[in-house]
Amino acid sequence: MQSFYFFGNGQADGSAADKNILGGKGANLAEMSRIGLPVPAGFTIPTSACMEYYRNNEHMPQAVETGLAEAVSQIEQMTGKQFGGAQNPLLLSVRSGAAVSMPGMMDTILNLGLNDKTVEALAHKSGSARFAYDSYRRFIQMYANVVLGLNMSAFEHELEVIKEANNLASDTDLTAEQLMLVVERYKAKLLELGGVFPQDPIAQLRAAIDAVFGSWMNDRAVTYRRIQHLSDAMGTAVTVQAMVFGNMGETSGTGVAFTRNPSTGENVFFGEFLLNAQGEDVVAGIRTPQPLTQTEDSLERLMPSVFAQLNQLQQQLEGHYGDMQDIEFTIEEGELYLLQTRTGKRTAAAMVRIGVDMVQEGIISTKECIGRMDAEKLDELMHPTIPASVAYVPIGRGLPASPGVACGQVVFDADTAEEMATIGHPVILVRVETSPEDINGMHSAEGVLTARGGMTSHAAVVARGMGKCCVSGCPDLLVDYAEQEMTLQQPDGARKVIRKGDWLTLSGSTGEVIEGRVETAPPSIDDAFLQVLTWADEIRTLKVRTNADTAESAKRAREFGAEGIGLCRTEHMFFDEMRIRHMRSMILAETKDERVQALEKLLPYQQSDFEGIFTAMDGLPVTVRLLDPPLHEFLPESEAEIKLIAEELGVSVGKIKDRIHALDEQNPMLGMRGCRLGNTMPELTEMQVRALMQGAIICAKKGISVLPEIMVPLVGHVKELQAQKELITQVANSVMEEQGHSISYIIGTMIELPRACMIADEIAEYADFFSFGTNDLTQTTLGFSRDDSGKFLDEYIKTGILEYDPFIRLDIKGVGGLMKMAIEKGKQTNSRIKTGICGEHGGDPASIIFCQKAGLDYVSPSPYRVPVARVAAAKAELDNPST
Amino acid sequence: MQSFYFFGNGQADGSAADKNILGGKGANLAEMSRIGLPVPAGFTIPTSACMEYYRNNEHMPQAVETGLAEAVSQIEQMTGKQFGGAQNPLLLSVRSGAAVSMPGMMDTILNLGLNDKTVEALAHKSGSARFAYDSYRRFIQMYANVVLGLNMSAFEHELEVIKEANNLASDTDLTAEQLMLVVERYKAKLLELGGVFPQDPIAQLRAAIDAVFGSWMNDRAVTYRRIQHLSDAMGTAVTVQAMVFGNMGETSGTGVAFTRNPSTGENVFFGEFLLNAQGEDVVAGIRTPQPLTQTEDSLERLMPSVFAQLNQLQQQLEGHYGDMQDIEFTIEEGELYLLQTRTGKRTAAAMVRIGVDMVQEGIISTKECIGRMDAEKLDELMHPTIPASVAYVPIGRGLPASPGVACGQVVFDADTAEEMATIGHPVILVRVETSPEDINGMHSAEGVLTARGGMTSHAAVVARGMGKCCVSGCPDLLVDYAEQEMTLQQPDGARKVIRKGDWLTLSGSTGEVIEGRVETAPPSIDDAFLQVLTWADEIRTLKVRTNADTAESAKRAREFGAEGIGLCRTEHMFFDEMRIRHMRSMILAETKDERVQALEKLLPYQQSDFEGIFTAMDGLPVTVRLLDPPLHEFLPESEAEIKLIAEELGVSVGKIKDRIHALDEQNPMLGMRGCRLGNTMPELTEMQVRALMQGAIICAKKGISVLPEIMVPLVGHVKELQAQKELITQVANSVMEEQGHSISYIIGTMIELPRACMIADEIAEYADFFSFGTNDLTQTTLGFSRDDSGKFLDEYIKTGILEYDPFIRLDIKGVGGLMKMAIEKGKQTNSRIKTGICGEHGGDPASIIFCQKAGLDYVSPSPYRVPVARVAAAKAELDNPST
Repeated sequence: MQSFYFFGNGQADGSAADKNILGGKGANLAEMSRIGLPVPAGFTIPTSACMEYYRNNEHMPQAVETGLAEAVSQIEQMTGKQFGGAQNPLLLSVRSGAAVSMPGMMDTILNLGLNDKTVEALAHKSGSARFAYDSYRRFIQMYANVVLGLNMSAFEHELEVIKEANNLASDTDLTAEQLMLVVERYKAKLLELGGVFPQDPIAQLRAAIDAVFGSWMNDRAVTYRRIQHLSDAMGTAVTVQAMVFGNMGETSGTGVAFTRNPSTGENVFFGEFLLNAQGEDVVAGIRTPQPLTQTEDSLERLMPSVFAQLNQLQQQLEGHYGDMQDIEFTIEEGELYLLQTRTGKRTAAAMVRIGVDMVQEGIISTKECIGRMDAEKLDELMHPTIPASVAYVPIGRGLPASPGVACGQVVFDADTAEEMATIGHPVILVRVETSPEDINGMHSAEGVLTARGGMTSHAAVVARGMGKCCVSGCPDLLVDYAEQEMTLQQPDGARKVIRKGDWLTLSGSTGEVIEGRVETAPPSIDDAFLQVLTWADEIRTLKVRTNADTAESAKRAREFGAEGIGLCRTEHMFFDEMRIRHMRSMILAETKDERVQALEKLLPYQQSDFEGIFTAMDGLPVTVRLLDPPLHEFLPESEAEIKLIAEELGVSVGKIKDRIHALDEQNPMLGMRGCRLGNTMPELTEMQVRALMQGAIICAKKGISVLPEIMVPLVGHVKELQAQKELITQVANSVMEEQGHSISYIIGTMIELPRACMIADEIAEYADFFSFGTNDLTQTTLGFSRDDSGKFLDEYIKTGILEYDPFIRLDIKGVGGLMKMAIEKGKQTNSRIKTGICGEHGGDPASIIFCQKAGLDYVSPSPYRVPVARVAAAKAELDNPST
Repeated sequence: MQSFYFFGNGQADGSAADKNILGGKGANLAEMSRIGLPVPAGFTIPTSACMEYYRNNEHMPQAVETGLAEAVSQIEQMTGKQFGGAQNPLLLSVRSGAAVSMPGMMDTILNLGLNDKTVEALAHKSGSARFAYDSYRRFIQMYANVVLGLNMSAFEHELEVIKEANNLASDTDLTAEQLMLVVERYKAKLLELGGVFPQDPIAQLRAAIDAVFGSWMNDRAVTYRRIQHLSDAMGTAVTVQAMVFGNMGETSGTGVAFTRNPSTGENVFFGEFLLNAQGEDVVAGIRTPQPLTQTEDSLERLMPSVFAQLNQLQQQLEGHYGDMQDIEFTIEEGELYLLQTRTGKRTAAAMVRIGVDMVQEGIISTKECIGRMDAEKLDELMHPTIPASVAYVPIGRGLPASPGVACGQVVFDADTAEEMATIGHPVILVRVETSPEDINGMHSAEGVLTARGGMTSHAAVVARGMGKCCVSGCPDLLVDYAEQEMTLQQPDGARKVIRKGDWLTLSGSTGEVIEGRVETAPPSIDDAFLQVLTWADEIRTLKVRTNADTAESAKRAREFGAEGIGLCRTEHMFFDEMRIRHMRSMILAETKDERVQALEKLLPYQQSDFEGIFTAMDGLPVTVRLLDPPLHEFLPESEAEIKLIAEELGVSVGKIKDRIHALDEQNPMLGMRGCRLGNTMPELTEMQVRALMQGAIICAKKGISVLPEIMVPLVGHVKELQAQKELITQVANSVMEEQGHSISYIIGTMIELPRACMIADEIAEYADFFSFGTNDLTQTTLGFSRDDSGKFLDEYIKTGILEYDPFIRLDIKGVGGLMKMAIEKGKQTNSRIKTGICGEHGGDPASIIFCQKAGLDYVSPSPYRVPVARVAAAKAELDNPST
């Protein structure tokens, strides 16, 4: 195993392809050196050494330890400088670099190699004692902090004292002598704090490398990797490189450049720099950097030849890598060095624009363009956002349940939300959790905030369906309905109280809760995005449908490119005020006759909803799920509502209460729901099928092409499907006979129980399609209630027991394993069976990859996720071509 | 396909082995004829004809229709009588007979062939016009009822009118002339009711066969098969046989005999008969039958030679079949005929006694004896029963949740139950449903009745664990706590009200609720039963452990033969009044410190419980499950209890209420429970492991052999087990070090989530054993909440969607399929892994067969089911020998 990979002078051990070994930074330095770019010489210690360091109980690998001096001497040869030399001292930077970028997460040390001797040499060689001692004091400070873990503020204090004593405003006003004093004070402070600053440069280097390895497992880095789903096992490389100085006077400088605008994607050379400064000064933001081009103080004006060289190099780099680059450069006394290049991070808008531009410029193919899309990131373009330029401090954080940004005045109940919205006030509806009763309030609100509930709670699902911003499951949120106020516990223990009418901003993309009104940017579905979606459609084989329950959302989803409805939840049609009364009468009926009467009243509503949806989806398939949720979700809670139902049914309030009590369940998710309803109350299925078929025939008679697919939910035993299928066929036949018009329809089932997967071969004999209800399948397979699992899920993800939330990303081993089994078994008995996924996972790019591999025919996300799914499906096809 | 299977005159088409073709009755008649017994000649139409009848839209198969006359002529030849003959008329019986006995479920017709002509011949030949016309009127009546479906009472009425007119007390007092009148009146009534009585004997026969086929699908038969889990597709055979007459005077008679006593099993010839009577008279119970032997009026005394012949034949039959026989016989004018023999039904006690006796008599082997045990039936011997001689009418019916019979005064709350029991009153605790709060009340009660909850509800599980009678989920029961009364809706719409203090009897074996006090018989674990258990132990390879949570129940289970504890639920230890306070403090603690304090108080209790269990189980393994249930099961509900906890923790009542509210879950079964508790509150696991290890070491130091097996519940992700295993090992090591004593223990997991089955290979790397928690695995695999599923499960079983309750009998395809997968995967990575089942299914014989086939190492039922499981395991080994 090689311990040192050298680069410099137009040569390198390794290339850009070696990111796993050399880290992103090391690999790119090697690549730049290989292609002849001006890169200061150095070497990279590979990631494997880091892992050995951890296996060795945090001790540096022997080979690194023993080979270090020799490795440094190679840099000496390449640069002609001596490490610790009294004439022409070699100074080094020591930087971390993992295979995947983890910006700012790990440590860096600059100016290493300075000591009481070399500082004089540097002063002499550079002709600036001021520069030399400033570099030295920076190094000591950095060493104290990064290597020894000492508090920076003690050193800052020493600096301030000297500045004040000399009446100086800025660090740059310090003279060489004053900086010598700073160095002495720093050394004394370091000793006082129990540290040791070694004068031996090799000892400094060894300690620095050790510190970089150690920083791999610091809290920030671990947390970052957890959030980004990165493995702790990849390790970091360490790059040791000859220093070049941007702070050697007015012909020196340092900067950052992007080959295209990372915010808009525009094809312009873009960046900023500081004269007479080191890189950290740019990052620290103490001085305002100057632009590279166009302005009076731009690099283009101040150092035209350096700019020309930089411009030529950036074009070479983008050409070489074929993607927008983020370049770090330093100018040392008029000499340009590139310190780093990497694929530049960009906004979703820039990602799309750059991709499309590069295709048009002939740099990449459309497939490459799609391959480069971060599908999840595209979601940003579907919702308003807070521009990066706006600074804010969140007062709370929940789950990013439905993306977008919403800003409004806080209200605590649905009715008030509706009233205030009617008179033109934007409102944020804050609830402990939402229920079907809150639907109108949610509709009226700009956004919804709940204290409880996961990513697939009622609030989250309904909000996503409405394309409405929602933050759910905010653990520190206390809602006091009586006082009409909410309290958010702050990290410092303080309690932030927000009262009714106060302004609040929610970011459903990040889960942040922000006090007051925050500026937002509107969604941007521009031509470039449309172009990307068109290309994605040309590539993908997975169909993308949508989950929509109303004509309105069906229309919207179709605009976003949905190729049908994968899940129309009929129960959502019953929450309207007029309808829920009949729904409640139906549920609380004691006899079948009473129930049939109530169902007859519901039928016209349902039929007209179906007509609207069929019309919106002319020519596309519409999967309608028969009633699914536990009935008590619809039950009245207030005395007034109960009284109303009692009057309507002509029975006593006590009787209604008894019936409500009788419907109560310990675990409604596992109770009387799904096809258990239709199988024990066939009249329910009858009404729904009748409404569906009547609606479909009315549309068909108007010339609309209707393709209904009737879906029986929660089937676990084959006879459940058989019985429902028989009933559906019977009702459908009657309606077609009555109407004198035939339409074709298919019948299938939702696969959402582990048992259904086990007996999928039996079920497939009676099903034209399987639609995987992965929300419920996740609940039963994992034994996680989506409403309650927040209590341990956060903790599980934090402690690494779970890698991710299985309600967001499909659990491949468990749920995915059952799905694969079901598809395989299903095709054994019904080779033509159509398969799709209608759970929330259908809009998650990682899950879409699984769907592609598993050979599903379609995914069906919520309307606003359709574009994301189209691109994700295309990417999945590129990576795993369908056969 | 043969349409007629003849028997008689020492010959037969077919034998006892042909039950599937000929039905039980036909096959046994063939067999008896084959071995030379005196059986009236006849033929059997096979079951396949019945199925063809149903395929033909309830029309008799062509081959039967056309061959019928010829078939009858063969009987004529064998008997020398003529069907419809004016000299020596042949009369026939037409009987149903399925492969499996369905006593009384289908129809029978006797005396067929009588008409206005043959009745005269019969009168002439028998010398008794009275006999002939009595037979004729019986036949008309039976034909009217069975073939024509007319109401019997109209005919009974005609008979009564004539008896009254002639001042007669009994049917037998009717003269020949009077009976002729009855026949005329019957014929008139039949016409009046719209029926036709054919004079043509073949037409009579055709109609009768048709009626018997039709009776296969009558409501009684369909219901019976549903309850017995028999298939509708097996069909019934029809046996047509020459009549012999037990009512031809004082040298004729008819009776039923058992080769041994069917109630006690005693090896004595046992039975009863009636002189001058037909079989229906014995069954109808109008006249009191006389015994076969011993008394003055016994057959032995009255007809010694017939008795001697019968006695010889019964010995021959038992010898031939090798099992106790139930024989029907008729004596026609001194001539003995056997009409039927079959394996006799018997009580559990007789089953055991006969089996053991027959082994000792050298008739069968011990393996055959075990093979003949109905393991489920043995459960009767473990609990008090209502003797068959006691008549009662139940006023309600629920689920037979925990067997036995209990009799006591009704109370409606646990405290009252305890109070009344303390002063010596036996009580029945009646609740809507029970909760942990009711444990002491359940303990004090004789039996428990609940309106809600399934076979594995809290009430059911706890009651079975206590060996206490329980009827759960009684749908017609309304409990009014305020009025202290319960109401049971009766089938006729009446409401039976039972008030506090009223006497009530429950049969937990049948689910019956009986008003008042009913006589009971004590459980009988006699020597014969012990012998059977010993033989079973010699055969079986499957180990039988038990589920026990206390030293007391562990001891009892060990007496019943348990070979270890397969599941010790540690949460049950916390329900005691003193302990639950600390448990609640623990749950409601806000900080880890507070929680640790409460746990420290719980530790000594738990440790002493473990000591007791280890002592009771000296030398046997004890599987202890770490805390599993949702914590809110332990929470206080009343204001007083909440106040107590608030004081104990020194916080406000409001705060405690907030915390209780925060613990509330939508679906607790899928929420914060199982190892999610131990993984988010490691201190909980720490305390439990410490208590366990300390208790084990104290016992070990006393010389007790302790074999602890620590079980982590509800694992779905391998890291859940890894983390708990690490913690357990760490605590166990500390305790062993502190105590200066090492003991060996193993760590395993409960497999109770579908995901655990999917990743069993990963889990097995960290587990010494898998214990299948099939209660929960059934809940998640099927999506059935055991507490709520009653709402549709009954309906599903009634309508045939489900064949049986999956909480009682393991769902082989779904749950069983996942188990097999888990075992296979688990053995891939850990070939030495031990596997067992600790769900309630471990005591169900049908499920035990699956466990044997799946290669499990042990089952673990509740203590009172251990004997059942021992025998079931032996039977399973016989049928599916382990390899």
